[in-house]
Amino acid sequence: MTAEPLSRNLAMLMDFYEITMAAGYFKAGERERVAVFDMFFRQVPDGGGFAIMAGLEQFVQALETFGFSRDDIEFLRGKKLFPEDFLQYLANFQFHCNVWAVPEGTPIFPGEPIVTVEGPCIEAQLIETLLLVTINHQSMIATKANRVVRACQGRPVMEFGARRAQGYDAAVYGARAAYIAGCAATSNVMADRLFGIPAAGTMAHSWVQMFDSEYEAFKAYAHLYPDNCMLLVDTYNTLKSGVPNAIRVFNEVLKPQGKRPAGIRIDSGDIAYLSKRSRRLLAAAGYGDVPICVSNSLDEYIVRDLFMQGAEIDVFGIGENLITSKSAPVFGGVYKLAAVKDGEGYVPKIKISETAEKITLPCLKKLWRIFDDETGKAMADYIAVHDEKPNCAGGIELFDPVETWKRRTFTGCHMRQLSVPVYRGGKLVYRLPALEDVRAHCAAQVETLWDEVRRFEYPHRYYVDLSQKLWDERHKLLEAKN
Amino acid sequence: MTAEPLSRNLAMLMDFYEITMAAGYFKAGERERVAVFDMFFRQVPDGGGFAIMAGLEQFVQALETFGFSRDDIEFLRGKKLFPEDFLQYLANFQFHCNVWAVPEGTPIFPGEPIVTVEGPCIEAQLIETLLLVTINHQSMIATKANRVVRACQGRPVMEFGARRAQGYDAAVYGARAAYIAGCAATSNVMADRLFGIPAAGTMAHSWVQMFDSEYEAFKAYAHLYPDNCMLLVDTYNTLKSGVPNAIRVFNEVLKPQGKRPAGIRIDSGDIAYLSKRSRRLLAAAGYGDVPICVSNSLDEYIVRDLFMQGAEIDVFGIGENLITSKSAPVFGGVYKLAAVKDGEGYVPKIKISETAEKITLPCLKKLWRIFDDETGKAMADYIAVHDEKPNCAGGIELFDPVETWKRRTFTGCHMRQLSVPVYRGGKLVYRLPALEDVRAHCAAQVETLWDEVRRFEYPHRYYVDLSQKLWDERHKLLEAKN
Repeated sequence: MTAEPLSRNLAMLMDFYEITMAAGYFKAGERERVAVFDMFFRQVPDGGGFAIMAGLEQFVQALETFGFSRDDIEFLRGKKLFPEDFLQYLANFQFHCNVWAVPEGTPIFPGEPIVTVEGPCIEAQLIETLLLVTINHQSMIATKANRVVRACQGRPVMEFGARRAQGYDAAVYGARAAYIAGCAATSNVMADRLFGIPAAGTMAHSWVQMFDSEYEAFKAYAHLYPDNCMLLVDTYNTLKSGVPNAIRVFNEVLKPQGKRPAGIRIDSGDIAYLSKRSRRLLAAAGYGDVPICVSNSLDEYIVRDLFMQGAEIDVFGIGENLITSKSAPVFGGVYKLAAVKDGEGYVPKIKISETAEKITLPCLKKLWRIFDDETGKAMADYIAVHDEKPNCAGGIELFDPVETWKRRTFTGCHMRQLSVPVYRGGKLVYRLPALEDVRAHCAAQVETLWDEVRRFEYPHRYYVDLSQKLWDERHKLLEAKN
Repeated sequence: MTAEPLSRNLAMLMDFYEITMAAGYFKAGERERVAVFDMFFRQVPDGGGFAIMAGLEQFVQALETFGFSRDDIEFLRGKKLFPEDFLQYLANFQFHCNVWAVPEGTPIFPGEPIVTVEGPCIEAQLIETLLLVTINHQSMIATKANRVVRACQGRPVMEFGARRAQGYDAAVYGARAAYIAGCAATSNVMADRLFGIPAAGTMAHSWVQMFDSEYEAFKAYAHLYPDNCMLLVDTYNTLKSGVPNAIRVFNEVLKPQGKRPAGIRIDSGDIAYLSKRSRRLLAAAGYGDVPICVSNSLDEYIVRDLFMQGAEIDVFGIGENLITSKSAPVFGGVYKLAAVKDGEGYVPKIKISETAEKITLPCLKKLWRIFDDETGKAMADYIAVHDEKPNCAGGIELFDPVETWKRRTFTGCHMRQLSVPVYRGGKLVYRLPALEDVRAHCAAQVETLWDEVRRFEYPHRYYVDLSQKLWDERHKLLEAKN
């Protein structure tokens, strides 16, 4: 048996109401009715300025294996709620939808359609939960990891969270999302095996404890792994015992072989103080260049403070706070009906809420990003009705969708459509990029954002504006429903 | 293809350092060395008084399928770090350990060994991450869900979180843990399919939007599901449109068939206000008994406030705050070396830390719970060295492990050993109880705790004390290392 979480059929990972509604559409004779759904999110986690799209590859893989086994059908039949012809339909389920999505690694903003599904309402409804759980999870981790990576100012960040992840998939796909967002490595062997993310790690406290003394534990390790000798120095006392024993072993075992140590790791205590003192001890022994790796419930805020205090850190191991996005562990992506097809046209649909931010955007839409010609920086995003052909060659006027009197004309810029076609009529038409390319895309796209947007707290709110036509459509529906 | 996350081989879900250490023990000729590891946690999530043990069944299933495929070995060989005989050992991996664990559904407290593994150090080391991720995740969700269930004061709680879970396993095993802790149902079809947890749900806002009017959407649903007719009333305006349309459809469609409505659901807005006003509207129409279900980012704190404000709620749907344990999304279980076998005896091992709470408990230990004979209430937990035979027939004196002058004698009580043997010499000797029995065990055991321990905030700290012998062993090691 091999580890192949990717080949699992996850069709049954749905909310029960999806299947009652699907059966409802089926029985009501509406199975050919074409609906348009958008996935979007409402708030950036941690009060940040942007999120990072991730998880599309797993969503595609889930669709590629989507189907109902004989046992699944038997289980549903046992509910005595669903007619036999509907169960037959499920047994022969085929996917016919169009899907557009923002590529993984791209910065995304609240309110934008990051995934759009257009197709028979039953199909579009049945995949709701699978889409949401996939994109919500990985986008959340990518968003958090990118914050941590930026806080670490170029020092490598290793994702160390598997043991505290919320389940196996959270460990494996969390490592994937973290890598997309800029982490350099993971502790998780399965993530390496499945995705080629470099796995890293040397020893736990148990190794040190297993031997009669810390010195003997270090010596044994150095003999076994002279090329990968990173020693964990905080089992007993970092400064009095751990670092001196490490130096002794570096001298006795590595030096005669002409090898340099891979580093020391500090996993407890006051990291700022211990790292500075450890650096001095190492430097005094001729090991001033030996990397100091730290790992102790860190996140972007603590890392920022550590740097302010002059901590001497070369490598960060980030565990539970990253793999669970502890300070913001929910990515609230939703999936809302935007339109229903009527002949060749679309009937726009809206959900009204008592809170203005929860009102949805009607229509089949397209998402564009406007870049400054000179700097290459992203200026604003622009959501238009699907049949519009926006163009900013001669300048483009944007206005705030709520405070509509705030208008601004952008000139000297170009637009790029952000979403790409992923499925056409149920056929995969998107070539999933290699993970390394997704990671490079993420780094490059985050670079297009102004520093003001990348601030951790109280960032500048990036403009996400609507075309006049879309704004009018929405306004018309709101007026009609009130 | 069927949905079978349980049959996945998760052996590769380990931290890389486990395999470097394992190879290290192998090369150092230590593969027969027997070590004792304890899993324990240090803090109850959310500042609560106790946690709930969960995840043991999945850990057992992971061990039953634990092994390395040819491709896994090939992958490891590619690292050029591990000797061929070690890779052969992994290819033929067999598990020989003893495992003891606290049964699922049992209240557990900080510092207690909730899982103990004794066996060849390589084997005990290789399963570390798999054990931790499994028990950490489900115990966290069970702990949170039990808080929510208690806050709901007997009203059924439905777990609605799949779309916001941190990955597929988090959705499925989270639903399982929530059910153990007292939730009545789940929205997650796969959790029903795999574990028989009743799946519930009727319609999303998209159903209502898909029709030309809310009334037509409700009418269609009532015709299709007259026996399960719970209508979602907040798509446009709960009080002006949703509830009146629901009443109209109850009258027009259900009443002529002699059916009662299954309920209404409110998913946005001010739940206290809307539920009270909805109840009045329903009652005035002769539907005062129709259940009102609410679901809008609730947790135990909001539920408590809703009751204080006289909200009229019969059923709770709890989503993201439960399935991610949002206010405490990390369960910090650790796995620490406690002893190494030496002939027939054990050499106790300790990890010292600058913070006193992080100092580990040495020795192979046994965990006992002391119950009051008269009330049946749990009085204290008692950790002893494995070969002690504690007995409280004639009264038992306990003392605080830190403030050792605080001593107290319990009389009129009996003790029960909490951990049970799960593996003996690598063979499964534990009969996994049915999920319903685990759920009943949880409810009964939570009942044995005093109200003071069950308080959500600033609960009474439950006593977890050490035997004199264990305290002495630990003290001796601390003195020796300083």
